Amino acid sequence: MYKLVLLRHGESTWNKENRFTGWTDVDLTEKGVSEAHAAGQLLKKEGYAFDVAYTSMLKRAIRTLWIVLDEMDRMWLPIEHSWRLNERHYGALQGLNKSETAAKFGEDQVKIWRRAYDTPPPALENGDPRLEVGNPRYAGLSATDFPHTECLKDTVARFLPYWHGTIAPMVRTGKSVIVAAHGNSLRALIKYLDNISDADIVNLNVPTGQPLVYELDADLRPIKSYYLGDQEAIKAAMEAVANQGKAK
Amino acid sequence: MYKLVLLRHGESTWNKENRFTGWTDVDLTEKGVSEAHAAGQLLKKEGYAFDVAYTSMLKRAIRTLWIVLDEMDRMWLPIEHSWRLNERHYGALQGLNKSETAAKFGEDQVKIWRRAYDTPPPALENGDPRLEVGNPRYAGLSATDFPHTECLKDTVARFLPYWHGTIAPMVRTGKSVIVAAHGNSLRALIKYLDNISDADIVNLNVPTGQPLVYELDADLRPIKSYYLGDQEAIKAAMEAVANQGKAK
Repeated sequence: MYKLVLLRHGESTWNKENRFTGWTDVDLTEKGVSEAHAAGQLLKKEGYAFDVAYTSMLKRAIRTLWIVLDEMDRMWLPIEHSWRLNERHYGALQGLNKSETAAKFGEDQVKIWRRAYDTPPPALENGDPRLEVGNPRYAGLSATDFPHTECLKDTVARFLPYWHGTIAPMVRTGKSVIVAAHGNSLRALIKYLDNISDADIVNLNVPTGQPLVYELDADLRPIKSYYLGDQEAIKAAMEAVANQGKAK
Repeated sequence: MYKLVLLRHGESTWNKENRFTGWTDVDLTEKGVSEAHAAGQLLKKEGYAFDVAYTSMLKRAIRTLWIVLDEMDRMWLPIEHSWRLNERHYGALQGLNKSETAAKFGEDQVKIWRRAYDTPPPALENGDPRLEVGNPRYAGLSATDFPHTECLKDTVARFLPYWHGTIAPMVRTGKSVIVAAHGNSLRALIKYLDNISDADIVNLNVPTGQPLVYELDADLRPIKSYYLGDQEAIKAAMEAVANQGKAK
């Protein structure tokens, strides 16, 4: 039996401002930093000791991971970064306030853009300064492959090769693995592992900073999964994510 | 022509307490954290933009690197850790205060242990809690190869395979490389690059937190090398290192 730990980054400045973030490289808030410390302390207390870590190219996930590894006295761990673990690209919505967008386009349209499996938001156009083609951070990603927007289906499609080619083989070696990533890249993995339908994935919310443990069998099929820590607090955190798209 | 940047970690708690540290995993002081921020700001201001980073298994070097990469907005950089970049192992002196040791054994003996090329300090014995054989951090290092003490010659011998096999080939690809490490692992590299004699290396001191730039030709032979930043401050920092072994 294998164990795998998934961790969504702590609260970011744009989580707090209720903006569509996507690939925008915003930092953690003070609360997000605290969440990361708490996650690291909890993992240490529960006896977790990772051998290898995977994260995205975005600082809110990287900083969360760094804080967790610092708390666990494992700053020396190998860390692999991939754009395939980045948050879903939010296209032309990146930077817009979710409540304002809901007031303008309607809550239903925003819920579709946020949660429908195969409807991407409007795409970023070439030349838009929000499109980071040419940034050395994405040197491994060609201009033609660079996402201009993504629906969750697109995120699943670019994440799964990294799961099958990199993370899953490492889990199979028996190494203890943590994946520190984003709401939608983690939903892509959870959808795959738990075989969740395109319709049901709409209502699944991943709270920030709460370690999610998967126990997997020899074929990496889930035996069970659970969040560590205070279950009431986790339920409240999941509802907070679900409510972000409301007009208020 | 290639450029390579070497950086010794900022002041550690045991630098401050004037203790022999070696492989003991002490953290940075507040001053050490400030030195790391200053180094990152300086490198960014001078236009450096690294593609890959190498560091040790010890948190004072890793934290220094993390702070530098944060300041340079390059937290996404690939980082490779190796015990071969660790500080020289200080054997049974690890944890002892340098001034006390000097008062007990004499300044000359301490200077020999600190600076002689081929005289190691007394070795740690098997069973000594300071010997970290079995720590998962050093899973890649067998009990028979695990150092129990080192002179600088030993540090050179275990560092150079990593230079030739890993760092130098990366520099030759044209990638911009930073090595964040320790006083003696960096002296090992400097001795090799500048072809410094066993006698002269005794008097070479690497200050904490000051980026040292090497410009290298196509065969990775130094064209020139220089510290970035305030030259008077660097001179004072080098003298402070040299004075640590005095009885006071």
